[in-house]
Amino acid sequence: MKINDPAVLAEVEAAFAAYEAALTGNDVATLDAIFRKAPETLRYGVAENLYGHDEIAAFRSARSPVGLERTLERTVITTYGDTAATANTMFRRDSMVGKVGRQSQTWVKFAEGWRIVSAHVSIIPE
Amino acid sequence: MKINDPAVLAEVEAAFAAYEAALTGNDVATLDAIFRKAPETLRYGVAENLYGHDEIAAFRSARSPVGLERTLERTVITTYGDTAATANTMFRRDSMVGKVGRQSQTWVKFAEGWRIVSAHVSIIPE
Repeated sequence: MKINDPAVLAEVEAAFAAYEAALTGNDVATLDAIFRKAPETLRYGVAENLYGHDEIAAFRSARSPVGLERTLERTVITTYGDTAATANTMFRRDSMVGKVGRQSQTWVKFAEGWRIVSAHVSIIPE
Repeated sequence: MKINDPAVLAEVEAAFAAYEAALTGNDVATLDAIFRKAPETLRYGVAENLYGHDEIAAFRSARSPVGLERTLERTVITTYGDTAATANTMFRRDSMVGKVGRQSQTWVKFAEGWRIVSAHVSIIPE
């Protein structure tokens, strides 16, 4: 299995960047599209445990669009073969003094493109 | 891409169970073996951000073996094709009153078998 094939890595990096732009811009339609539309898709958020795309989409719709800007730190994207990847990053927000966020995503490539199938976000004291 | 092929799912379920037994039994050698030995392997823990297998192994060695028992809840393991899978679960410990843990793992199958390449654990108030 090839790890970090440059062409595959470039695809996932682009998908990750598109997700980040949609997140900080609160582009809910794009966020919903990037998470695979399936009951298996799962997202553990800062304060919520969302099982299935429906729960994730409901959370996005209800979320306040204020204060989503953030800076990323120590981002690591790794591809395994042609159809699986992980993306992990730490993040900071001006509102999160003395704390750091961590975001983990598992990406899988389907016929329709790369999609997030699992995500976990948490914030801890530094 | 086949989702949850029964034979593949059975393999990952067995690997997940072996990890859980090693974790609650503080079997550090097995825990170290289950995480892929590579600099890309990453684990965001309850209070630590570990980049690379070396940092993960150092954390395991230093960890107190007391109070690791836990019960799992809403565990979801999903396989994508023959070589990638996600495992997500919530967990509770007697010591964690009013709180619930979340554990996310990405598994990839290599020549040597299924290995965790990325993990994220966090605890939040309920």
